[in-house]
Amino acid sequence: MRPSGRAPDQMRPIAIETAFTIHAEGSVLVSFGNTKVLVTASVDEKVPPFLRGKGQGWVTAEYGMLPRATHTRGSREAAKGKQSGRTQEIQRLIGRSLRAVVDMKKLGERQIVIDCDVIQADGGTRTASISGAWVALRIAVDKLLEAKTIAEDPIVDKVGAISCGIYNGTPVLDLDYDEDSVAEADGNFVLTGRGQIVEVQASAEGATYDEEGLLRLLRLARIGCTEIFAAQDKATGR
Amino acid sequence: MRPSGRAPDQMRPIAIETAFTIHAEGSVLVSFGNTKVLVTASVDEKVPPFLRGKGQGWVTAEYGMLPRATHTRGSREAAKGKQSGRTQEIQRLIGRSLRAVVDMKKLGERQIVIDCDVIQADGGTRTASISGAWVALRIAVDKLLEAKTIAEDPIVDKVGAISCGIYNGTPVLDLDYDEDSVAEADGNFVLTGRGQIVEVQASAEGATYDEEGLLRLLRLARIGCTEIFAAQDKATGR
Amino acid sequence: MRPSGRAPDQMRPIAIETAFTIHAEGSVLVSFGNTKVLVTASVDEKVPPFLRGKGQGWVTAEYGMLPRATHTRGSREAAKGKQSGRTQEIQRLIGRSLRAVVDMKKLGERQIVIDCDVIQADGGTRTASISGAWVALRIAVDKLLEAKTIAEDPIVDKVGAISCGIYNGTPVLDLDYDEDSVAEADGNFVLTGRGQIVEVQASAEGATYDEEGLLRLLRLARIGCTEIFAAQDKATGR
Amino acid sequence: MRPSGRAPDQMRPIAIETAFTIHAEGSVLVSFGNTKVLVTASVDEKVPPFLRGKGQGWVTAEYGMLPRATHTRGSREAAKGKQSGRTQEIQRLIGRSLRAVVDMKKLGERQIVIDCDVIQADGGTRTASISGAWVALRIAVDKLLEAKTIAEDPIVDKVGAISCGIYNGTPVLDLDYDEDSVAEADGNFVLTGRGQIVEVQASAEGATYDEEGLLRLLRLARIGCTEIFAAQDKATGR
Amino acid sequence: MRPSGRAPDQMRPIAIETAFTIHAEGSVLVSFGNTKVLVTASVDEKVPPFLRGKGQGWVTAEYGMLPRATHTRGSREAAKGKQSGRTQEIQRLIGRSLRAVVDMKKLGERQIVIDCDVIQADGGTRTASISGAWVALRIAVDKLLEAKTIAEDPIVDKVGAISCGIYNGTPVLDLDYDEDSVAEADGNFVLTGRGQIVEVQASAEGATYDEEGLLRLLRLARIGCTEIFAAQDKATGR
Amino acid sequence: MRPSGRAPDQMRPIAIETAFTIHAEGSVLVSFGNTKVLVTASVDEKVPPFLRGKGQGWVTAEYGMLPRATHTRGSREAAKGKQSGRTQEIQRLIGRSLRAVVDMKKLGERQIVIDCDVIQADGGTRTASISGAWVALRIAVDKLLEAKTIAEDPIVDKVGAISCGIYNGTPVLDLDYDEDSVAEADGNFVLTGRGQIVEVQASAEGATYDEEGLLRLLRLARIGCTEIFAAQDKATGR
Repeated sequence: MRPSGRAPDQMRPIAIETAFTIHAEGSVLVSFGNTKVLVTASVDEKVPPFLRGKGQGWVTAEYGMLPRATHTRGSREAAKGKQSGRTQEIQRLIGRSLRAVVDMKKLGERQIVIDCDVIQADGGTRTASISGAWVALRIAVDKLLEAKTIAEDPIVDKVGAISCGIYNGTPVLDLDYDEDSVAEADGNFVLTGRGQIVEVQASAEGATYDEEGLLRLLRLARIGCTEIFAAQDKATGR
Repeated sequence: MRPSGRAPDQMRPIAIETAFTIHAEGSVLVSFGNTKVLVTASVDEKVPPFLRGKGQGWVTAEYGMLPRATHTRGSREAAKGKQSGRTQEIQRLIGRSLRAVVDMKKLGERQIVIDCDVIQADGGTRTASISGAWVALRIAVDKLLEAKTIAEDPIVDKVGAISCGIYNGTPVLDLDYDEDSVAEADGNFVLTGRGQIVEVQASAEGATYDEEGLLRLLRLARIGCTEIFAAQDKATGR
Repeated sequence: MRPSGRAPDQMRPIAIETAFTIHAEGSVLVSFGNTKVLVTASVDEKVPPFLRGKGQGWVTAEYGMLPRATHTRGSREAAKGKQSGRTQEIQRLIGRSLRAVVDMKKLGERQIVIDCDVIQADGGTRTASISGAWVALRIAVDKLLEAKTIAEDPIVDKVGAISCGIYNGTPVLDLDYDEDSVAEADGNFVLTGRGQIVEVQASAEGATYDEEGLLRLLRLARIGCTEIFAAQDKATGR
Repeated sequence: MRPSGRAPDQMRPIAIETAFTIHAEGSVLVSFGNTKVLVTASVDEKVPPFLRGKGQGWVTAEYGMLPRATHTRGSREAAKGKQSGRTQEIQRLIGRSLRAVVDMKKLGERQIVIDCDVIQADGGTRTASISGAWVALRIAVDKLLEAKTIAEDPIVDKVGAISCGIYNGTPVLDLDYDEDSVAEADGNFVLTGRGQIVEVQASAEGATYDEEGLLRLLRLARIGCTEIFAAQDKATGR
Repeated sequence: MRPSGRAPDQMRPIAIETAFTIHAEGSVLVSFGNTKVLVTASVDEKVPPFLRGKGQGWVTAEYGMLPRATHTRGSREAAKGKQSGRTQEIQRLIGRSLRAVVDMKKLGERQIVIDCDVIQADGGTRTASISGAWVALRIAVDKLLEAKTIAEDPIVDKVGAISCGIYNGTPVLDLDYDEDSVAEADGNFVLTGRGQIVEVQASAEGATYDEEGLLRLLRLARIGCTEIFAAQDKATGR
Repeated sequence: MRPSGRAPDQMRPIAIETAFTIHAEGSVLVSFGNTKVLVTASVDEKVPPFLRGKGQGWVTAEYGMLPRATHTRGSREAAKGKQSGRTQEIQRLIGRSLRAVVDMKKLGERQIVIDCDVIQADGGTRTASISGAWVALRIAVDKLLEAKTIAEDPIVDKVGAISCGIYNGTPVLDLDYDEDSVAEADGNFVLTGRGQIVEVQASAEGATYDEEGLLRLLRLARIGCTEIFAAQDKATGR
């Protein structure tokens, strides 16, 4: 029995509210149950130094958690003077996940910077970030297409992400904090709209798992991503 | 004529939404027009080292702005590895403003940490932060009183803050970004519910001003704070 | 009765010694009683990046306090690896105050960097810094005029600064450390030679104050600045 | 055809030289072909603050790469003043991998710190680090057992790691730098001696992959780990 | 011929002004010609962690240079966020030099922190710092003896320092900036009142030198230190 | 009697193994007894900003110590976020020592970066670094000469370095850790192949020493360097 009473393959309610803030080219508030992340996509008409003059674009991401997004207050990274290893790991994952579905030549020499700021955390902040980030990116790119700044759509597929894990011996989908903190194994799966794998990160915590365990987690992830892709379609009106 | 069409002494609409997030002891989303700040109050049962064993509490604040809260993306302070001088100036002001209305003996040996994170900026983020922070603090302290963790109310008055400035030669109340960026003078006023001054910070920008100018700004600030105190009362149900 | 035996509107003796060091274009040792600040003005024939090619100059300031300028040794900011919020707040104030009386077009594309280093502290270090910095700036600009590097005087007025506060219920002028550390309210006033206000920063400490209190502090500040302007005239031989 | 002429499921030669340095409780130089990592295990009779008094131990890891371990010189992290996101990601993975096979209660209140310093890099530095680190840990723990500092062996299994990827459309084992830099997909697999999965990190680079692709990589990893476990046995004389 | 017209073995005028600032237990302004350093000695009734409970004291030093102490403005180390290698090298030398003449047992469990801040630089700032620091230390220790805080004098000898170098092929004493910047070799010599060597640091710059060269520099240093010890005696009234 | 049983003027065995790693233009593992340093020389076809366009080259050095190179584990400088004063002092010394024997005009506008990483420490790591660095530099420059990238040999002499000290009242050569930690005086001597002095750094530790002491240390250093130069010749096959 899951603490939330959900079935093993049951997601939390997903909501993707667009235009949550006014300045960014793309802006969404994405919620997976009590996990809420504000994601913005900012178009920058410059690429990073290593890409200058190469005729291609770039997508990158930054991630942060507000100090009191969590049960107990965490210290502010800006005040501590550095981003934690966890923060850097997550923002690198978000960037890689989005780049996997973008054709950088078609984007042209410009960069889209994704900012994911967790306003409230209840497990799965990195996967909610990726799932929401795709929508923010989609909206920002649509504006570039409408303005004819770019000629062809550089986004080649959707991308969604979800965590699965083994809780009390049972594989479960979309772990919340209560589950995540005691799960025996825990994986983050990033999948494309066509069902391809972009990234799998699955760790044993305490207990190890076998190949069958990995496949069961992956199958749950597919179920979850189907729901995420539907929510993305609804948010972008497609 | 103000860009927004407001009268010189007209505030933007104020909204203070409580319980915006679930984990913090006090949590509000405060809006002054398009300026939106998420404020949380976190109770920490420890005081900073310089107060240990002195039988009194402390209230402090941290401030941040999400990278894309503004028209163009600003760099993330956590990634740059330090808080700007502006950020530190603002968070020191918020802390001082709240401490002016709290009896630290009655609070007991505990600290309340206020986090003000600007989600969307359109001028006046520091004054919106102070005005919202008082509500978050009030809610957090009410929980301590209800739980009988503290016996007597340590909050001795309300505190609100507003910016006023000279725009096109006219003193105006509650500057938005369009006004703020070209104002000849610009002041932040922190007042108590009883009309006392907690802090005045008024700077000339380009032009200087005289004593009469300062007084006219202060009078506008009183008008604005009356409205802020009403919004605070409404938010806390008093 | 003030600890120093001064009358409420009595300043400490002011001294502004020019040419205190030999390398800087402008160099003064400014004393307000036991508060002593070494101020240098350095002319840099380059402007900061945000002003390049705009045909105008810039004036900026940095502030520091020697570790044993104070009663007990403070830690060295260079060794700690960062400037405190207080330091940044002060150096931003000094820069703004000087810029208020400089015509940046007439200065041309060059920067003047003011360094204020407190050698001995007894209250009022930021206001002494501003008052002395104007003299260092004046001397550096005079050299540029003499060398015909610039054609017209970019300095449009004098600027001086003084702190006032409420001590034992009485408004007093030019607080020293003994007063500052227990004052009920404390303000820094930056005024021009023509009597205009450049900046007011007045905070309640413990007790709040009213409009009349603010005006009484401002009036004391005018008295003090008259004396400061005389000392500036004497130092620059005008 | 692989650049090295190896068969798709062929590892590079593995060497694990023990007692490479004299001071550490465990010290090995591990080589996978031209990738060479110096790994030391240091016993510290103190646990980190979050574990004090809990009657259990801890295993953690730090990772570094000498500036000229690579084809072109990389900048020194100590000189830059921070560890990169990649470095932090890797050292967190090494620590988690080892902790998965250690019974922290049996280790007692002490910490073992693993240092992995890459002397020469040719792909697979993180997996070579993990595979070598287990040997260094094993040697250090054996000394604690011999000295009867701890009563029961806290190491419950071996752990090894290897990278696999899709190169020119073919899944290949143990990627070297020439393959790694152009692989379509790239995964790091951490397995226990009993064949359980500790961690899977598989990313698409350019192209995505499907479930069958993931399983083929995992099967290659099992082949590689068999060889690693044999090399570990040989190094520890078991 | 030296640029200053001095004879090869001629020092610049030395001045050691005591009680230059009021708060520190010892405070001197030391000048070697145009090189001026403000040195303070601060008594701290705590020793650093590595000495706690060992019944002995410590003497340490910090060094800084005001940004415009030099011909062209240098950047402020506090603003850059770190002390340069040169700064650290110098402050370590000052600390070692003073500790060589202090009996730490007799000092008791307290620390004396020496701050050397260069107000004006014209070569030889580190040796002026050491020579002046001894006087500041002597004054601070005398106060401890007068107050009977310590029973026996922990200072066992004087210490002085001077630079010598080979300029245009000739060994010269007490290099100023014009000489220092083009000297073929350059050495700093720290000697005790009894003529013992505390530290020699002699570097070739461009040309190398031989044993005879080293001895000639050392002999010049002895001449210089005799003068320094006399100035120290005069300053301390002995 | 020395702890190692060596005669006062007896060096530890020296070994300089070339081509220790494959990527660097020059790479050696240098050992003085149990002190082992990996030194690489990297050719960079760019000079630092202060030399651009001046038609000359540069040689610089960085130094690091692996955390467990020592008896007890030291913290990793990259993780602490800064290099210690000791590290900076050493890398500056290594750079100066090598530059003393290189004709920068003949090197042309390129930089050679020397990395010295201590793999195992037993005293004398800075002098072993310099002695080994010369070999790595020689090998890298030979490659530039062979490739006709540079026309004339810029290396004008050999350079070697050794520590000497006073141990139990006796001057001894090539101190190991057991001696170094209790020596009364301790010096590092950098000499050229022709016997000229590049640098002398001799400090008293506890006791001071006289001119005769300094000369006796220097004479021992000459004996040691003769042996070092022979080892350098053997390593480079000259």
